[in-house]
This record gives sequence, C-alpha cells and structure tokens, in this order.
Amino acid sequence: MLNVAIAGASGYSGAELMRILVRHPEVRLRTVLAGKNAGERVDALYPDLARRIDLSFGPLDPNAVRGADVLFLALPSGEAMRFLPGVRADVGRVIDLSGDFRLSDADVYRRYYKHEHAAPELLGSAVYGLPELYRDRIAQAGLVANPGCYPTGALLALLPALKEHIIDPASIVIASMSGVSGAGRSSSVEMSFAEVNENVRPYKVGTHQHIPEIEAVLRQASGSAVRLTFIPHLIPVTRGISTTIVADLARPLSQEEVLECYAGFYRRAPFVRITSLLPEIRHVIRTNYCDIGAVIEARTNRLILLSVIDNMLKGAAGQAVQNMNIMTGIPEGVALL
Amino acid sequence: MLNVAIAGASGYSGAELMRILVRHPEVRLRTVLAGKNAGERVDALYPDLARRIDLSFGPLDPNAVRGADVLFLALPSGEAMRFLPGVRADVGRVIDLSGDFRLSDADVYRRYYKHEHAAPELLGSAVYGLPELYRDRIAQAGLVANPGCYPTGALLALLPALKEHIIDPASIVIASMSGVSGAGRSSSVEMSFAEVNENVRPYKVGTHQHIPEIEAVLRQASGSAVRLTFIPHLIPVTRGISTTIVADLARPLSQEEVLECYAGFYRRAPFVRITSLLPEIRHVIRTNYCDIGAVIEARTNRLILLSVIDNMLKGAAGQAVQNMNIMTGIPEGVALL
Amino acid sequence: MLNVAIAGASGYSGAELMRILVRHPEVRLRTVLAGKNAGERVDALYPDLARRIDLSFGPLDPNAVRGADVLFLALPSGEAMRFLPGVRADVGRVIDLSGDFRLSDADVYRRYYKHEHAAPELLGSAVYGLPELYRDRIAQAGLVANPGCYPTGALLALLPALKEHIIDPASIVIASMSGVSGAGRSSSVEMSFAEVNENVRPYKVGTHQHIPEIEAVLRQASGSAVRLTFIPHLIPVTRGISTTIVADLARPLSQEEVLECYAGFYRRAPFVRITSLLPEIRHVIRTNYCDIGAVIEARTNRLILLSVIDNMLKGAAGQAVQNMNIMTGIPEGVALL
Amino acid sequence: MLNVAIAGASGYSGAELMRILVRHPEVRLRTVLAGKNAGERVDALYPDLARRIDLSFGPLDPNAVRGADVLFLALPSGEAMRFLPGVRADVGRVIDLSGDFRLSDADVYRRYYKHEHAAPELLGSAVYGLPELYRDRIAQAGLVANPGCYPTGALLALLPALKEHIIDPASIVIASMSGVSGAGRSSSVEMSFAEVNENVRPYKVGTHQHIPEIEAVLRQASGSAVRLTFIPHLIPVTRGISTTIVADLARPLSQEEVLECYAGFYRRAPFVRITSLLPEIRHVIRTNYCDIGAVIEARTNRLILLSVIDNMLKGAAGQAVQNMNIMTGIPEGVALL
Repeated sequence: MLNVAIAGASGYSGAELMRILVRHPEVRLRTVLAGKNAGERVDALYPDLARRIDLSFGPLDPNAVRGADVLFLALPSGEAMRFLPGVRADVGRVIDLSGDFRLSDADVYRRYYKHEHAAPELLGSAVYGLPELYRDRIAQAGLVANPGCYPTGALLALLPALKEHIIDPASIVIASMSGVSGAGRSSSVEMSFAEVNENVRPYKVGTHQHIPEIEAVLRQASGSAVRLTFIPHLIPVTRGISTTIVADLARPLSQEEVLECYAGFYRRAPFVRITSLLPEIRHVIRTNYCDIGAVIEARTNRLILLSVIDNMLKGAAGQAVQNMNIMTGIPEGVALL
Repeated sequence: MLNVAIAGASGYSGAELMRILVRHPEVRLRTVLAGKNAGERVDALYPDLARRIDLSFGPLDPNAVRGADVLFLALPSGEAMRFLPGVRADVGRVIDLSGDFRLSDADVYRRYYKHEHAAPELLGSAVYGLPELYRDRIAQAGLVANPGCYPTGALLALLPALKEHIIDPASIVIASMSGVSGAGRSSSVEMSFAEVNENVRPYKVGTHQHIPEIEAVLRQASGSAVRLTFIPHLIPVTRGISTTIVADLARPLSQEEVLECYAGFYRRAPFVRITSLLPEIRHVIRTNYCDIGAVIEARTNRLILLSVIDNMLKGAAGQAVQNMNIMTGIPEGVALL
Repeated sequence: MLNVAIAGASGYSGAELMRILVRHPEVRLRTVLAGKNAGERVDALYPDLARRIDLSFGPLDPNAVRGADVLFLALPSGEAMRFLPGVRADVGRVIDLSGDFRLSDADVYRRYYKHEHAAPELLGSAVYGLPELYRDRIAQAGLVANPGCYPTGALLALLPALKEHIIDPASIVIASMSGVSGAGRSSSVEMSFAEVNENVRPYKVGTHQHIPEIEAVLRQASGSAVRLTFIPHLIPVTRGISTTIVADLARPLSQEEVLECYAGFYRRAPFVRITSLLPEIRHVIRTNYCDIGAVIEARTNRLILLSVIDNMLKGAAGQAVQNMNIMTGIPEGVALL
Repeated sequence: MLNVAIAGASGYSGAELMRILVRHPEVRLRTVLAGKNAGERVDALYPDLARRIDLSFGPLDPNAVRGADVLFLALPSGEAMRFLPGVRADVGRVIDLSGDFRLSDADVYRRYYKHEHAAPELLGSAVYGLPELYRDRIAQAGLVANPGCYPTGALLALLPALKEHIIDPASIVIASMSGVSGAGRSSSVEMSFAEVNENVRPYKVGTHQHIPEIEAVLRQASGSAVRLTFIPHLIPVTRGISTTIVADLARPLSQEEVLECYAGFYRRAPFVRITSLLPEIRHVIRTNYCDIGAVIEARTNRLILLSVIDNMLKGAAGQAVQNMNIMTGIPEGVALL
C-alpha cells in the first residue's frame, strides 16, 4: 500500500484526485492539505465525498507530508515551486499538477507566468509527465511535471504527425474549447454562471502559458522547430476540452493512412483511442481517455486533427494518477478504467 | 422628455434598466451612478451597450441626481435606504428596486434582512409597485417599492384565487425555480458556472426575505391571514422564474371557470397572459409578460397554479419602467412591448 | 460469474447498465439486445464505450436470452410486458426497469399508462425493487420491478416520516425537477436543446404515471391512505432529480429529531445519506446515492423534505444493479461505490 | 406600409422574422405560410407571441403571397428554389433566407447541397445580401440571397484584411462555434438536449456547404483566389456564433493599424462594431450587431481575427430585415436597433 499525500487538496484538481484515490486498491490516502480550508472536513466542502472519505484538510505544513511515498502537488502555479523545495528530500515521489516544473527554461517561465521562478535548481530534474511520450523516463522519475490540460490534448494529437513528418511544423494552428473547471474553484465575476452561460470567450490570445509548453515538447520530440498559434476559448460546459488543429500536409497521404499511423503510434497506450468518427467531449467525460480523429482536406492539402479529453482527468488528476501508477510499478490503468 | 437617473447602474438590474431606457422615446437617460465602477465607461463594463449608450458611471453622489424627474434605485437592499433620504426632496419620483421599502414593518424587515432599517420614516410613504394590483396608487405615488422577483410571479398567480375565495389561504405551498441573474453580478464560488451548471440548489428554505413580502400583500389584498411555505431553487438558467403553487380548493370549480376568472381579473393588464397551456419560462424571457396557467386536480381537490416571468424584466427592471410609465402618465407598455 | 443479458440495451438506461456491468467483477455481460439498432456495434452508438465493451446489439429475440442468470429489461413501458412472458421460464432472475410491473392493479395501469396491461398474470409475482424498503423480499424475488426515477427520490424522502407518523398523510405536496435523460434517447422537438435550454417545463401536471406508484408504496408501507400532489418539471440539466416535499407536521418535532429519525431509519442503507445541509444534485450525480435533507418550518408547522438522486443511477440502472446484487447474494455496493 | 408575407414561417428563422416584423413601424405582416403547421395559430406554436401576433399559419399556397410588397422565404434549402419560380412575378421583392440562391454556380450547389438546383435560371438575378459589402446592389435588387450564418461572421471579419492585402489569401483557417438554433427546429436525436449539453461537436469538417459561399464572396471581393479551411463546431448554447480566424500576415502591421483599418472600412455600417477587446457572443445576442476584434501575433507573424454574431439575427432574420429596409428605402436600422 502506498502512503499518499495531497497538498492543495481543496481545489477542483485536488478533489478529483481524492475521488480517484479513494477507489485505488493500492493507495492509502492519509493526508490532504489545504490553505484557507484547513480544519474543514473534506465532505463539508465536497458533500459528494460523504461516506467515501473520512478526513479533514490539514494546514499546508511541510511536516505533514514527510514520509509519504507519493506526494501530489495540486497547488496553483507559483505556490507549488515554493512548497516543494522544503519537502522534496522527505517524500518518495512527487507529481506536480501545476505549471511550475513543465518548462525547463526559467526565463520562458517568467515571461509567460509573469513572476520569477522560485526553484530553478529543480527544473532540470523534472520529467514531463505525458506517459504516451515519456513512459520510460516517468517510470524512473522522482519528480514529474504533470502536463497542462490544453497541452495534453494538443500534444497527443500532434505528436504522431510531427514525428512521422506528415505535416509542415511551421503551419500549425490550434483552436481549443474548454470547460470552466479548468480554471479551478473560482470566485471571479468572469467565471460566474451568468457570464459564462450562453457565451463563448476567447482569452489569452497569443499569450497563454501553455504555448511554450506545447512548443517545447513538440520541438524536443520531433527535432524540428515549430511555429504554432494556440487560441483557447471558454465555453459553457463544466468539463472537457475539444481541440481542433489545422496544418499543411508535408506529403500526400490518405485519411486511412493517417489513422493507421496514429493507431500504430498509440498501440501500447491504454488511454488513447483513434477513431474514424469526429470525436466529441461527451465520449470522454469522466474518463481518462483521449480520443483522436483526423480528416484529410484534399481541397486545401491540409490535415485536420481533432482531440478530446476530460480536462479534470486526462488533463489533470487522471493523468497524475496514471503517472503515479507508472512511477510505482502499478499497472497503468488501475483506478482509471 | 423625462430626465432620468439611475443609482446603482452597474449591476444587472441597473444594466437592464439602461437597455430599456435607451429605447424609451420619452426618456433622456443622463445620469448613471455606481459604486466601485465609477469612472468606467458603461460600454467597457457592458460591451453589448456599445453604440447604444455613451455615458460613464459617475460616483454615488447625491448631488448628481438632483433635478431628475425620475430616479431609479438599483442599489442592493441595505444601501438604497441609506441613499434615498439625502436625495428624496430633490428628485421628482423614485422607484426603488431593492427590498428596502417593500415591507411596511421595520421589525419584520430586521428579522428577514438581518439589519436595522435606516429610514423607517419613509416606509409609510412607499407604494408597492405591482401595477396589476395597485395601478391607481402607483399613478399617484412619489416613492414606489418595486416588487421582488419571486413575489411578482407568486402574487400574480395567487391574487385572483385568494380575492375570489377559490382557495384555502392556510394551505398554500409555493416552489419557485429561478435563474442566477436574480442574484446579481456575483463573484461568489456558489454562483460560479462550475457550481451552478448541472445542478439544482434549494436555498434559504423557510427563511427567504420574500416570504413576508408575499404574505403581507396577500393579506392586505384578500383580507384574510395566509399561511404559506415558499421554497426557492436555483437552477442553471440565466433568466426566468418558474413558480408552481399548490393550494386546497375552497369551493368546487372547473378548470375553465378558474381560467375565466383569471382572464377577467387581468383583463386590463397588458402584461399578464392567462393560458390554457402549462407556461414555460422561454415564452416570457426577454419580455415583460407574466404567463399564468391553472390546473384543477380533482383527485386531491387542489388547485395548481403555474406562473413564469423574466426575473430581470417583469421581476425587476421591466416592472420598474412599467411603474415609471404609470407614474408619469405614459402608456403603460411604452418601451416594454 | 453471472451470465447477464440486457433487452433494450440501446437506450440511455441500457447504456448506463452496460457502463456499470463492464466494471462488475462478478458479471459476464454476454448479450445486449436492441430493436432498431440491432446489428450495430455498441461502441458505434456509444463511442464512450470503445475499448470497454466489445459487443454488437442483437435483435430482440427471446432465444438470445435463454440461460441467462440475470436478465435486465430496459425496454420502454408497454414493450417489457410483451417481451417478458416468452422468456420468463428460461432465465434465472429478471429486473425490469420499465413501469410495467410496478403497479399491482391492471386497472390503475391502464388509466395512467393509457393502454391495457398485456401480462396481468405476472403482476402478482413482481417485487417492488426499492432495497431500502424491501431488501428481504428482493433477495427472494424472481422478478423485480425497478422503481421509477421520481418515486425513488420521493419515497426515500417520505417513508420515514410516514412510517413514524411525523406528517399528516393527507397533506403531501411534491415538486420535482428532473434532467432530460429521464425521458430516454429522444428525437422529439420538445426534447431538443433549443427548447429545453434556458427553460423550465412543468408537464403531466396531475396525470403523471408515477403518482399511483408513489401512492401505492406509501399506502402499503405506512398503512394509511395518502393524498399527494406530484408536479414534475423538466429543467436544463442532463442528469439528476431534485425533489422538494412539503407536508403538515402531525406532531411537534425539532429538526435534529427528524434528522436522527431519518439516520436511524437508513442506518443499514449504504446508498442513503442523511444530511444537515440542503442537498444538491451535483453531490449525487454519477453516483448511486440518495441524499436527503429536512427542514422544520415552525412558522407554518410544516416539514420540508429535500432529496436528490441521479435519475440514471439510483433512479434506474444503478438501483437495478443494486437489486441484482441483493438477488444474487453479492454485497449490495459492488460496482456501485 | 409594406404588405409583407413569410413562406416557411413556422421554423426558427420564420418565427424570428415575425418577432422583428411585429415591431416594425412600416410593416403590415399579413401572411405567414407553413407546411405541416398550416392551420395552427402562431401563438399555439410560439406562445411567446401571444398578444403580439394574431394570425394562423396558412398552407404553402403561392396564391397566398401574390401582391405582397416583400416576401421572405424562410423555407429550408431545397424548398425555397421550388417555391420561388411560381410566385416571383407576383410579388415585389424577395428575400430568401435559405442557401438556394447564394451560390452562382449550379454545379457547386449540387456538390455541396447534394441535390440538383431546381431554378438555375434565377441564380444570376440574385444579389448576395451582405449589406456591408453590397449595400448599393441590394438597394436595387428584386431578389436577395440572405447570407448564411457562418459566412456572415467569417466574411465581415475577413473582408477588410483581404481587400487591404493585409493577409495571405492562401493561409486562412477558420474555426466557428455555433449555437444549436442554427440547425432549425429539429427533432433529431443529435440535437436533443441530452446529446448537445456538456458537449462540443465538430461536424461537416471539410464539407460544409458554407465553404464555397465564403470562398466565392472573398474571391469576388478581393480579386484573388483564397484557400481556406472552415471547421464548424456545435456547442451547448442556443444562439450565437463565435468565429476565430488565423492567417499569415502579408505585410508588417501593428494591432492599432489593423483596428483602424477595420474601423475605417465599416465606418458607415451601423451593425458592425470594431472592438479592442476580445468579442464574446453574449455581447451581441438578441441584437443585429457583429463585433469584430483583431490580434497581431508577432511571434508567428499571423493575424488573429475574432467575430461574433447572433446567428438568428445578423446571421438570419435580422440581416433579412436589414436587407428589406435597404431594398425599400427605409433607414437601415429600423426595428433592429
């Protein structure tokens, strides 16, 4: 049994981690820490967890996580990098769900996250936690940077096409539509029902912090520079990200060949499903799957890629547990299928 | 042309007032005051009003409203009663959209609103602004207390049945379902999309401040004491209130007789429509109508009443303009039909 | 391992059964039958089930279910009673999710379902499948009539109050708000997004077929006649039923006493949670729980009961599997917690 | 007063036309025809129009529209072209809201609409009804082909950039998100609430019939061939289209210069608002406005254009009335501001 702790358990990602971990047969969830909700019972804040978890949130005290086999950091970006150094030596493995350890370059971090990195010395040791790309490295890692929600959907759709030189890496355009849970437990007017419902909101156009994350992984994986535009849109759903990608074809290819190539690329990935249909988020909601579809547009000589994930699961807590399973030698799909 | 001012114009009711008043042929909207949004352009906060209104919010300065023919107070309950005394003498007519002047009894106000009334001396002069009940008094009034959203839907459905002694006044049960805009421009977690969507939330069960408002008007109109239970539910729609009422029949009556009685009661009311269908909020959204249906349940000897309104219009800003029209001799439906 | 078949597997209840059963460690789901979707792969109709189920829908052929240890009927009311007689002798246990075997009186059935009962000889043998009331009988039953979605939420809230003589059985008023999945896979204009979104629709007021079902169970369980009004409302959510009940108190009682009484009544029920909060459907969505709250309204001497369920789980497929577990000696919560 | 008729009045576009026209001071709406709803009162099908319109739907009889000054065709594509020839000579001006007269090439029509054109002889006489591009021609036209909803949003965003040679016409990628009302009054499972809610559905990827419409207008207006990818997504809102466009910059330009160029281009267009914000559909819902924003992405040397419309108004019925106003010499904004 793994002794597991969560720091930042009172937000949506933390709560989703708790929902998965209470069902995990190899996990004993002992410690759930939170900032302002410390002292409160978990099922007072999340009544759906009544009878399923019998814990109260503790304060964000480093001593509370010492000795944990696995520590999940579900703190906001900017807080995770301040909490981690003080506990890193005292816990077995760490999976960070924030953006703090995803970029290897502290300068790029500062530019997109708008503050200095507080623990640049740890950046080199973090492994990017996309199992479908880095399963072997994750299995050896002590610190995993769990991918961002948008990058997960975009990368899984783009990686085969780039690695197989199917598309021109300078031609990529990505439009994503996301549910609101990705923004976390929010008390802003912008995230209120009255402002989100019956609306679409493009935001952070050209400036989203997931842009350098997607670019860096694609560059490293494909060996070539990419030029990509990424435009996120907030839509009135609670969960799910639908990503639509357009790129120029680099060589002639039929739709069947593309789908075959993708199926081959992901043949050992239990959570990626290649489909000849157009994927819809309702097919993956409340699951850890990423569904990917592809359309060849002969008229324009372009490839259109479509992917969907549940931003809370494959885009956050689900993928984090998938990483934990890989890191600890548990079959990848336990508690997630 | 009426010279019109709004205090508290930056909230949802204030914005809705602006949307109506810019189309009103007899109104010149000159002054829109707001607390924390003072100095901001109206169309920066409400981009839908770009090109339709060319004003900035002024600070909540009593001097700014002096000389107005009509002043709308769209301030929160508790603030309206503090703002009004300082300006009452300097403006022609006042329509208050808050709850501050709807209850004639300061003790009851304190019990339900949880604070002392700051201007009890004005309570006696306020006329309750339900045109279908008090049109003549409203026409003479200097201060109108615009009804609450829930009371508007409940009262219009109940008044004929009570005044015509169709139902037992001690048997009334009211369940209402409301859209979130009734709570105003909110930055609470509870009103965030992620917490409201795919949910129903009963709230303030047995303690809602609209209970004494409904009771007092029914008692005054019908001459008999009423006993009523009122249970509001927040549902995931932006606008609209659907109210379902059950009461024991006091005398045998067919459904046709009930509908006829209702149609007669409201024959001069331009904004009440009696229907033999079951009313739905989509039929009245973005209108000032209240649709009312009625079903006789022979098996239980009960009357079931159903009413729907747009909480922002007939339940707030629309009814306020309807009252303004009546108070100033303008045909009741101008800018509202 | 139980050999399990589903007749009517292509509708929403059938699909939900499949989602639960593929995770059930004691079940081998071998046969899924459907009318017009026969021949189609399950994951073509429900892409979320790709990789989780590798079956095609077979035609509604009685021979296909012979030898099944458990047969779920997820056919529409009216079809289940025609399919069952031809297979009853050849399968072990049957759980019918339709309304066909819930009412013991064929005359009442005809009045509310608007057609003759086709298998009245089987009515006597069916056990009403509400485990919290009839667990022992269910354990012995060959044919279980799985309760309706509305009755499940209403009965669980009302049973303790009636059995403990807390409320006047002639004073019950029930208002329920339901998501649209309860209506099944629908191609009607009325259930289209454009007509349901931003709307509330009261329907079948005074005539809903769940009225006699609720009445009969309450009468049988409490030994006294009840008079109840039940008003269902369709609201824009996919899943969930929120039920609000008002009744006159039969004896003085504090809120704490009511909650204690309820907690005692359900102390052995793994899926009923008594809460001192006001229950919301998001707390039970995607679970088999029923959360129940209670408020004493001293001003009116009434008891207000509030319950929430997921209509697809505790209100249909989840409760059906709960019944299967009880009928076959499997711990009640397997595959449901 | 204009004598106005609508053929196909019972669908959503027809109903929206009625809602506008009953408020139009220069219009007498006398004739509303419908196929299967013939004989039904308008307010039975659309209860929101009770007291606002006192008409019944007539059958689709050509004689019923003879003598009309203006005839709106709100029939589905494929039906409009069959109805029009028989009545063209007997009515003054015709505005067709279907896709039947938007493409000048019958071969292209056949390829995208999947059936032969029934009235190719009329194709040459139709003027494309985008007032911001063709106001003068519309003023002289007898037959106006009202633009498609997606083309309206895409064209208004792209026209200035293409005509001013700001972008490379071979580099255009368009992603649109649309509410469901664009699909009309639908009884398909795909458009049911349970399948649309909490979902995003890309559809007709690479094959949508609005692709040749957008391409042809851009080619004609800019004089150069365009290569564009257009991907529509259905999202869970009732009204509104949000369009996001990415294209390579053809020359260096600042964001301010782009916005200035756009403001100049549309300086005489009462319904186009250029904004320095990112436009959201809630800002234009229930209005005839198109809001357009633009972002220069220096990192990729691309221009990102964003536009929003209400698909039922500027994307259908509102634009149709705007065209009627222009055709008949009425100020462009009457009944629409």
